Amino acid sequence: MKEAVFIYGSTDLGMPEFSADLLWRAGGYKVPDQVYFFEIEDKKILFLSSLEIERAAKEANADEVVHLDLYFERAKKENISPAVLFLKERGVAKVIVPEYLRFRLGVELSKHFEVAIRNSPFYERRALKNEWEISEIEKAQTAVELALGIGTDWLKKCRVREGFIFDCEGEGRKAYAGDLRKIIDMALFSDGFLGVDTIVSPGIEAADPHAVGLGPLKAGEPIVVDIFPRSIKTLYFSDQTRTIFKGEPEDDYKKMYNVVLFAQEEAILMLKDGVDGKLIHDFVADFFEKSGYSRNLKSRPVSGFIHGLGHGVGIDIHEPPRINSYSEILKKGNIVTIEPGLYYPVSKEGIPACGIRIEDILLIEESGAKNLTKFPKKLEDVIIS
Amino acid sequence: MKEAVFIYGSTDLGMPEFSADLLWRAGGYKVPDQVYFFEIEDKKILFLSSLEIERAAKEANADEVVHLDLYFERAKKENISPAVLFLKERGVAKVIVPEYLRFRLGVELSKHFEVAIRNSPFYERRALKNEWEISEIEKAQTAVELALGIGTDWLKKCRVREGFIFDCEGEGRKAYAGDLRKIIDMALFSDGFLGVDTIVSPGIEAADPHAVGLGPLKAGEPIVVDIFPRSIKTLYFSDQTRTIFKGEPEDDYKKMYNVVLFAQEEAILMLKDGVDGKLIHDFVADFFEKSGYSRNLKSRPVSGFIHGLGHGVGIDIHEPPRINSYSEILKKGNIVTIEPGLYYPVSKEGIPACGIRIEDILLIEESGAKNLTKFPKKLEDVIIS
Repeated sequence: MKEAVFIYGSTDLGMPEFSADLLWRAGGYKVPDQVYFFEIEDKKILFLSSLEIERAAKEANADEVVHLDLYFERAKKENISPAVLFLKERGVAKVIVPEYLRFRLGVELSKHFEVAIRNSPFYERRALKNEWEISEIEKAQTAVELALGIGTDWLKKCRVREGFIFDCEGEGRKAYAGDLRKIIDMALFSDGFLGVDTIVSPGIEAADPHAVGLGPLKAGEPIVVDIFPRSIKTLYFSDQTRTIFKGEPEDDYKKMYNVVLFAQEEAILMLKDGVDGKLIHDFVADFFEKSGYSRNLKSRPVSGFIHGLGHGVGIDIHEPPRINSYSEILKKGNIVTIEPGLYYPVSKEGIPACGIRIEDILLIEESGAKNLTKFPKKLEDVIIS
Repeated sequence: MKEAVFIYGSTDLGMPEFSADLLWRAGGYKVPDQVYFFEIEDKKILFLSSLEIERAAKEANADEVVHLDLYFERAKKENISPAVLFLKERGVAKVIVPEYLRFRLGVELSKHFEVAIRNSPFYERRALKNEWEISEIEKAQTAVELALGIGTDWLKKCRVREGFIFDCEGEGRKAYAGDLRKIIDMALFSDGFLGVDTIVSPGIEAADPHAVGLGPLKAGEPIVVDIFPRSIKTLYFSDQTRTIFKGEPEDDYKKMYNVVLFAQEEAILMLKDGVDGKLIHDFVADFFEKSGYSRNLKSRPVSGFIHGLGHGVGIDIHEPPRINSYSEILKKGNIVTIEPGLYYPVSKEGIPACGIRIEDILLIEESGAKNLTKFPKKLEDVIIS
């Protein structure tokens, strides 16, 4: 029985739709308009409108490029989609689709073919990075570190008055999270990387790990800076978090910072080919509990160590493998983050209301991991005078 | 029978997924993580993880915010998705879903409920813009015009040598499409708008309307500049194309430009509440034929007027109504582009190999349309000395 792998089908309405699987498999070909992508007997086939086909023929890593428009009239007459007509013409009987295929298309395919849903990840090999992919992620990481360097240089120029960071540009006003975000994001953009909703989250705002951060920046308070830009050209990401301070923090912040840093460094030492990510995640969770930073996941608002320890990074910002409380074996060639964090929306004895997170990105190797992050993270290095 | 509208279900892997329908309906709430959105008996319900729920409770336009985590264990035990469990608990019997729902989720819903697919647009009302939406699109359009102004000011500084545009920054090298793109995109980004893959496409490259443009810029040759930035804050777009020249173009280019401009201005005059977009599209297609710019849509490469005349713009860059060869009635409150273009990958008698497109964005009104685009488009205004 002839099988087809049916990876992607977009419509011509809505946002330029994007499939990381398609981009990965078709060799970097970006398509803003209607497209279908099949694999039949090891041949990669792009099925495209006339607006896309000439570039696809030149740029895409496909064995065949088929003109969608030639199927429109017949498909309309038979009241089926061009994709169905094409697959029938090629003698396909069974179709393997991703779980994220558009529902209506999946329903239609089911009327004409045997349809099997392959769960994510659709291509397991996407989690194993090749040399070129590693270098793309390293480029993104270099841009992160340059941008954060520009950001911390800016903070150095600022003064402190009545506990607030102010007068950074000599204009005598308070500094806001958005000021630092814009400096970082402009630096990234200028280097060809896109940082949008970069997290610059001060004090209690950072107790919500996904809050992008709004408020005025205060001296001595932790500021979580999570930078995850994407290459505009190749669409690969990197991901790094530093928690920084302008001026000396109080002892409770210092203690909490060093607990997160210790957990992060120990977790990194546990990384290697074949290790179960759950072991590392659980180690960190236990270490936080033993250090007096307990966790509440049941009642709102949640607090403590409330998210997974890390995740794969590539064309998607979050991709396999996940490092969290579910078992998943890490493999040589994975690129993952290690990002423990503590989050307290309400202060308690010895724990100020705030968030602190430290995140590096690493390449898993045979007997360890190569840290792709060079930006300093010792407490004294993240306190800006 | 109790019905639910099931708008959206994302997974926690992959890119922060985005549903324009969800954003529109939930009042601007952006969510990077796993989320479900339902409407049950006119109540809007967000179903979210603990990482998202606190912000949703504060920011989203929802009647109820439900903690997804509370359903995980039971759902796992019963081997169904949390969404199914929740809908059953609420006594739902029928579920209305968008055609783009994830296939696996659609299949699972079908096992437990009557499922109806509602075709796109899921919310027809999204095509009718309210005052706030109009002002957001106008802000984006203002950013477009400022950015293109900065771009043309830069071109004014350039010199011409041996037919090439060069020495724009006094550094004595040729100017490339990417140089002008970066100037435009940096200006947009600095204003809070995201322009990625902005089209700056010179000469023959522009014969492919979706080519972003690479090559050296030549004097007297048309350069298609298509700018469609998105507000980083609210995610609304605008869209404008100008075809510009550095230095006097040859007569064949001038004639072709003025044919496109005449078609565009006539098409704009035809816009009003109740008109069928097909009439306007067909008028433009006929006018081009009569003016000697014939069309080939059948054999590759296609040439002439090869795309639809226009499209709606909002949270998506392409949204209803479409203005093309299919009937679709335009309504007061639609915001649409009018963007005729001519594309010739191979030159013929009196027609140079190139692309020329002119695009404005307009608000449809009772008996006409309000042009939201102020940037000049007369031939003498797009020739930069």
